[in-house]
Amino acid sequence: MITLREVLGRAERCFPTNTAVVPLAGGPAVTWAGFVGRVRRAAGALRSLGVEAGDRFAIICRNDPRQAELIHAGYWMGAVPVPINYRLAPVEIADILDGISPRLLAVEDHWASLAGELVSAGRRERLLWIGSDNNPVGEPDYETLRDASPEDEGRASGLDDDALLLFTGGTTGRSKGVRLTHRNIAANGLQLLAPFRAAEDDLMLHVAPMFHSADLLGTPLSLLGGAHAYLPDFTSEAFLGAVQKTRATFTLLTPTLLIRTIRSGGIGDFDISSLRRIAYGSAPMDPAWIRRTVEAFPGVELVHCYGLTETSPILTTLGWNQHLAGLEGGDRLRSVGRPVIGVELRIDDDGGNRLPAGAAGEIVARGPNVSGGYFDRPEETAAVFRDGWFHTGDVGRLDEEGYLYLLDRKKDVIITGGENVWSAEVETALYAHPDVVEAAVIGVPDEVWGEAVLAVIVAAPGSSLVSEDGPDALIAHCRRLIGGYKVPRQFRFIEAMPKSAMGKILKSELRRRYRLDRG
Amino acid sequence: MITLREVLGRAERCFPTNTAVVPLAGGPAVTWAGFVGRVRRAAGALRSLGVEAGDRFAIICRNDPRQAELIHAGYWMGAVPVPINYRLAPVEIADILDGISPRLLAVEDHWASLAGELVSAGRRERLLWIGSDNNPVGEPDYETLRDASPEDEGRASGLDDDALLLFTGGTTGRSKGVRLTHRNIAANGLQLLAPFRAAEDDLMLHVAPMFHSADLLGTPLSLLGGAHAYLPDFTSEAFLGAVQKTRATFTLLTPTLLIRTIRSGGIGDFDISSLRRIAYGSAPMDPAWIRRTVEAFPGVELVHCYGLTETSPILTTLGWNQHLAGLEGGDRLRSVGRPVIGVELRIDDDGGNRLPAGAAGEIVARGPNVSGGYFDRPEETAAVFRDGWFHTGDVGRLDEEGYLYLLDRKKDVIITGGENVWSAEVETALYAHPDVVEAAVIGVPDEVWGEAVLAVIVAAPGSSLVSEDGPDALIAHCRRLIGGYKVPRQFRFIEAMPKSAMGKILKSELRRRYRLDRG
Repeated sequence: MITLREVLGRAERCFPTNTAVVPLAGGPAVTWAGFVGRVRRAAGALRSLGVEAGDRFAIICRNDPRQAELIHAGYWMGAVPVPINYRLAPVEIADILDGISPRLLAVEDHWASLAGELVSAGRRERLLWIGSDNNPVGEPDYETLRDASPEDEGRASGLDDDALLLFTGGTTGRSKGVRLTHRNIAANGLQLLAPFRAAEDDLMLHVAPMFHSADLLGTPLSLLGGAHAYLPDFTSEAFLGAVQKTRATFTLLTPTLLIRTIRSGGIGDFDISSLRRIAYGSAPMDPAWIRRTVEAFPGVELVHCYGLTETSPILTTLGWNQHLAGLEGGDRLRSVGRPVIGVELRIDDDGGNRLPAGAAGEIVARGPNVSGGYFDRPEETAAVFRDGWFHTGDVGRLDEEGYLYLLDRKKDVIITGGENVWSAEVETALYAHPDVVEAAVIGVPDEVWGEAVLAVIVAAPGSSLVSEDGPDALIAHCRRLIGGYKVPRQFRFIEAMPKSAMGKILKSELRRRYRLDRG
Repeated sequence: MITLREVLGRAERCFPTNTAVVPLAGGPAVTWAGFVGRVRRAAGALRSLGVEAGDRFAIICRNDPRQAELIHAGYWMGAVPVPINYRLAPVEIADILDGISPRLLAVEDHWASLAGELVSAGRRERLLWIGSDNNPVGEPDYETLRDASPEDEGRASGLDDDALLLFTGGTTGRSKGVRLTHRNIAANGLQLLAPFRAAEDDLMLHVAPMFHSADLLGTPLSLLGGAHAYLPDFTSEAFLGAVQKTRATFTLLTPTLLIRTIRSGGIGDFDISSLRRIAYGSAPMDPAWIRRTVEAFPGVELVHCYGLTETSPILTTLGWNQHLAGLEGGDRLRSVGRPVIGVELRIDDDGGNRLPAGAAGEIVARGPNVSGGYFDRPEETAAVFRDGWFHTGDVGRLDEEGYLYLLDRKKDVIITGGENVWSAEVETALYAHPDVVEAAVIGVPDEVWGEAVLAVIVAAPGSSLVSEDGPDALIAHCRRLIGGYKVPRQFRFIEAMPKSAMGKILKSELRRRYRLDRG
């Protein structure tokens, strides 16, 4: 195992003239020697702003080579980057910043108004401006500072030192920071070499936002001296154009984005002949859509990936040969595949007893890519990380041939457009409305988004919520509290919730009732 | 990182119905579930014969699935298998057995007369007979005992426990046992996934003998649920027939065997369309022969591998894309490639100072695949394993792009037909002849064998060695002391050795004198 700093050192020594980054914004490609040089200077820039080994620093930036440089500068010097989900509401971002006390907040100029909201709400983090537009900092922007900084020697981290902090929605209404160590991330990079059939001449187009663990699927390429390009905003045209421009060979898409691209009808307008392989995951995809994807991208191999932020992120993969077998018939296209090397899976019953093949229960995993826990959340860490095993909260079964099938999400997470939405978080927002007596949030099937957020509400007697304007009022209410992608799109107002003998709302009953009802 | 026991557990869980072994001798293919079942029972058989965790047991067997079962049974139960080079002279084998005190000696019936020599020389190891011919043991042979044994639970080894002991020629005239841990071997398996582009549907034909570290190049396939077949004796027809029969996709050949196969002219007589990739290595191969290999195996990718037993074994690889570039021109085909993931290389001068790119010096390496040292040889271990770095004894240089070029072998090793011959060992045998006053052994280029062993001799005045019969007399003398492949094929009798001011024989001068002289 090697640290992420050593991954950089290796690339510099072994692949100095290989391309590391192809900037979509224009300009020449950056070699690995050039990229590591930038990373060393970025570390110098961070140090000049007071960031030292062990410190955290936050980044709000769309996909961009400059964010890649800053994240790798953290790896280089032993400081911990925290890329922030810019789709969160400002109050949610403020909550995260309060928790991690970052030494610095790097903000892309694109997010100037978001930064303005944070600052006017009283935040005092030192700012580093990425880009030169609307710069309120009155100091050099990141690139100017980087180019003026000396190459920093950095610091050698241990394998079990934190490398990255990624936030994921919390079941208790607050998001949690997942601590990923150098070992965790490098291990998953090694584990994905074979499933991705990664090669030195691969170029990955990073479509998933860099605050998401899916961005880590680029590690195998960095280990081999492959290249990266970063797509800031997804439209199907921008995506296809970027593949054509960069000659990308590999990308990861959520089913939602794959389906949008196919539906756009624009695939034939671009030269995407460089594409060898598309990984997809983070949500189930109907076999009918897998078939359509195969037809829409002839000659491109598909790999399904299943994992969680807590597993850096991939636990299982379903490779192209398994897709081919599944396209012939049988149930294999509904499987999320088999564990990557070094990952062990168990299926447990509610009492924590291991179940045999075929039985459904909680998916429990261990391996070198499994996080040690959440940042500053000992209780939530203890609840799911036990005796070296991570309890995913997902329900699944293993078949006799070792394939994993996902059945349900014990944790009550809804995956909409590749984003995780924890129902508890949305329910907390709904309960904050004075007329909401009871609220339960579930995911319902949606062909484009995978799942859509549906809220079941018991309103106060006589409330105006039970009217045509009720949904709009609740949507406006939620928007002030949680990120737009978490706000329910569908509402059902009922008289009383179905409940267990213990008084717990029976979500299973609500799901049965509303999952087939496309209302 | 996972132990080799866990590799078996993973294969059993994840790939139970995949083929693990295709027996060349006939009979049905063995699945991974079936293979691991056999390994468990083999462990039971070993235990019934007194082998426990921590014990060593020796094996004398050509390439065979039964040897693979026994080796893996060792991994399973934490006992250390020691596959023995059956090309060694009986006195050399006896010396190895004296050193390791094995609990058991498993012998293939093919080697009955060799075993007989060992026994009649007074050896008392308990024997386990592999096969049923000429069985002197009077007890069940391995397979009968295995099938009658219960499945053994084995024992979980630590990553840093010894897994395998492989003997390699010694510069002091005795071979040394290289201790390879679970971590060492599993690490190299992971490191080779990408260079070999290994896949689940790969089948490796094991041509290199299993007592050689080259056999470990099968580990990546085992990690992915791929398959193995074992070729007991090499002829080009047997090799090509085995590829056809097993539909092998991958193999490792020494340049000698590659050249013999091409020269046989028989490639077109077999269906070898399944072959995707040939790894070659353990000796330099002239670019002209690389070209002929590419022509002789159309559609097959080549990977050059460089390493040593002490590095489990691969340090660097030159992939197919680099071959393609090299075939276009330039010097790349003379490079042994770049380090696998996790390996760091240094070029040191004689004082142990690190040299810059371009300078020639000793190749020094570290990484998770580097052995901790030799069995029971603290001084020789201390001489080459220092501060976590292994001093290979090979001379090379790194270029500006990170490619390694081998220049010479500081250790005075001759590689003939893929076998290592340490000149000191051969010289010791020569000095044992009463008429040899001085002896120096060097390698000279040989198109088929890579290098041939040439002995330069200063004979006693008036000795009959300096006659037409001299070479035959020395060959017969050497055959009694060392394995046939080490015996010199060429002799030069001279009056006096060229020597340094310190009185040391100048092998560099002898090489200059005789390397171009094909006499």
